[in-house]
Amino acid sequence: MTPGETLLRLRETRPLVHQITNYVVMNETANATLAVGGQPVMAHAREEVEEMVALAGALVLNIGTLSPDWVDAMLAAGRAANALGIPVVLDPVGAGATTYRTQTVQRILDVVRVTVVRGNAGEVATIVGVEAEVRGVDSVGVSADPAELALQAARTLGLVVSITGPIDHASDGERVVSVSNGHPVLATITGTGCMVSAVTGCFLAATPDDPLGASVAALAAYGVAGEDAAREGKGPGSVHVALYDALAALDPATLDTRVRIA
Amino acid sequence: MTPGETLLRLRETRPLVHQITNYVVMNETANATLAVGGQPVMAHAREEVEEMVALAGALVLNIGTLSPDWVDAMLAAGRAANALGIPVVLDPVGAGATTYRTQTVQRILDVVRVTVVRGNAGEVATIVGVEAEVRGVDSVGVSADPAELALQAARTLGLVVSITGPIDHASDGERVVSVSNGHPVLATITGTGCMVSAVTGCFLAATPDDPLGASVAALAAYGVAGEDAAREGKGPGSVHVALYDALAALDPATLDTRVRIA
Amino acid sequence: MTPGETLLRLRETRPLVHQITNYVVMNETANATLAVGGQPVMAHAREEVEEMVALAGALVLNIGTLSPDWVDAMLAAGRAANALGIPVVLDPVGAGATTYRTQTVQRILDVVRVTVVRGNAGEVATIVGVEAEVRGVDSVGVSADPAELALQAARTLGLVVSITGPIDHASDGERVVSVSNGHPVLATITGTGCMVSAVTGCFLAATPDDPLGASVAALAAYGVAGEDAAREGKGPGSVHVALYDALAALDPATLDTRVRIA
Repeated sequence: MTPGETLLRLRETRPLVHQITNYVVMNETANATLAVGGQPVMAHAREEVEEMVALAGALVLNIGTLSPDWVDAMLAAGRAANALGIPVVLDPVGAGATTYRTQTVQRILDVVRVTVVRGNAGEVATIVGVEAEVRGVDSVGVSADPAELALQAARTLGLVVSITGPIDHASDGERVVSVSNGHPVLATITGTGCMVSAVTGCFLAATPDDPLGASVAALAAYGVAGEDAAREGKGPGSVHVALYDALAALDPATLDTRVRIA
Repeated sequence: MTPGETLLRLRETRPLVHQITNYVVMNETANATLAVGGQPVMAHAREEVEEMVALAGALVLNIGTLSPDWVDAMLAAGRAANALGIPVVLDPVGAGATTYRTQTVQRILDVVRVTVVRGNAGEVATIVGVEAEVRGVDSVGVSADPAELALQAARTLGLVVSITGPIDHASDGERVVSVSNGHPVLATITGTGCMVSAVTGCFLAATPDDPLGASVAALAAYGVAGEDAAREGKGPGSVHVALYDALAALDPATLDTRVRIA
Repeated sequence: MTPGETLLRLRETRPLVHQITNYVVMNETANATLAVGGQPVMAHAREEVEEMVALAGALVLNIGTLSPDWVDAMLAAGRAANALGIPVVLDPVGAGATTYRTQTVQRILDVVRVTVVRGNAGEVATIVGVEAEVRGVDSVGVSADPAELALQAARTLGLVVSITGPIDHASDGERVVSVSNGHPVLATITGTGCMVSAVTGCFLAATPDDPLGASVAALAAYGVAGEDAAREGKGPGSVHVALYDALAALDPATLDTRVRIA
């Protein structure tokens, strides 16, 4: 399925996407989810995550403001998702910045069968042991070529890896698909990476049997919407607002003509 | 008092509204509170909620991202509010979606004398045992007529029930007031229901002796502001922004002419 | 260095600013940090705060939605910052409103060598024992003149005090610098004070040896951006959005010509 076809299916099915994510972006990823066509639900209590994820079409785990209770909930929700065949997106925010983040990502990958890892180059490099410099939650220097890194990480981890950056790359370990939509202003808005992860969860819920296609569709849809938003806004505040309008206005019929995929 | 008169009193008194609410919407309900004329304060630590609520004109409890510590704080704040005669709004976000949410709502209603329950039809139906389908935090199917449901729930619970949806209905168990303002685009923005609950808390703080009137005024003010915002914006992002402008620009003198109440 | 020169250095160095702040404003302070030229990182787990703060140019502690675990993390991060010579901003949100807040501020000041306290007049008055009325998280009545209060508090505490209000005042205990930029509409947006604290952290990271200059530069930059935003927007929602655009568009070369400092 093309990105446009996947978007059409997403809009038709409006899947519930359960997100255990960070405090900084909860409102933003919920709104991005709604705008692109999914239905967000945020729930993190150990008492309910297994029951909540059973209602969802995908689970998104994001460690942006992690703490032990939240990690426990992520593991429980992830195991429940696995048992039910519900796909899981992991956003390893800040992996490499602190030992706690790096070890938590490893622990989640050990315990949960993750479907897609969506991160920046530094985070993904950290996970697979490639030299990288992570500064806080931003990737500032990775020795490897990001397309090659996506391929290698996907092979090593045995899942789909989606790396965002000036050009985005998604790989299932066999192919690498590069998407060059988007706009630099998005990097000046907090949580844009987290929103891509949430949107990836939406597309994955719509086409659970094609995690690479879903990841590419998410990169394409978000990138095209980002271009529209960048044209509409004057700076990080107004572009941020225009991004939700643009995600909601995405047209499945013309999306494929606007995507720049290599 | 009419909605316009209640808004005028709210603007004159600027009551403090203590909110123990979910992570997703804290900024949004605080800004909606400020825009309509209240003063928000968010505090959830068991160490301070009783002291904080004593300063407030109303307490809003919202279980959107509940966990045991937060529920304990809600119960403590609710009991303190009851002891001081401070009205309490309960937003039962996602009641019916998980056992934990359904039981927590029941527990709050058992321990705290709630003044107004503000929810969607599925959540309210769940509370009073009417058949309903709740999908995540959204109501997708309720067998009962929502006006009838509001009346019945208000009678059963012995409090005011305010149900939002395409048409909103508030009841004190004797009368049902239906408000048909608002706009469908609001359903594509996360937290609009939570904002109505916060705004209900504002109006309730301004007119604590008339919880039905306060609930109707909140539905009216929010609905009219939503119409203005829908006209101003192009999609969920810009409508969301315009909503705060519209709430702040609400004119007490003309509000009553714009409200569609049956 | 003038505010414009400090802004230029901030933009050139793009320091990481570690923020342990409240749930209400995390997205907003992160976006304000990015817009003005810093790099935000939010991390609060006891397991990682010491490692994270070591990567940062400044630490911002904000007690807006405090609880025991978060206070422990603040103390640990603050001690680590002190050991490494990293400057610390404290935002005593709601000090005076509850005993827990007042005591927590005192505890942080006892344990951590704070560089700048950024608060409203009521909060600062509370800290130094001057009569004040704090209503929720807003200062509504302080007997002392705020410029005098800033001076006295800075002397008593032995640090820089930055008090925001209709006119802002920063003092190192010897001089008081008053900044009369800004716009009243900012008071109708939640978290604007918290954003000033975050921006103060950015400037402090850029010029750690001049905490008074950094505080004044933050007040100046934020105030000038607030004026631009107030001109651009129609109400609290659109001004809020325009604020990020305005912070990002601040021009170091002309900032000094627009600042009103006494």
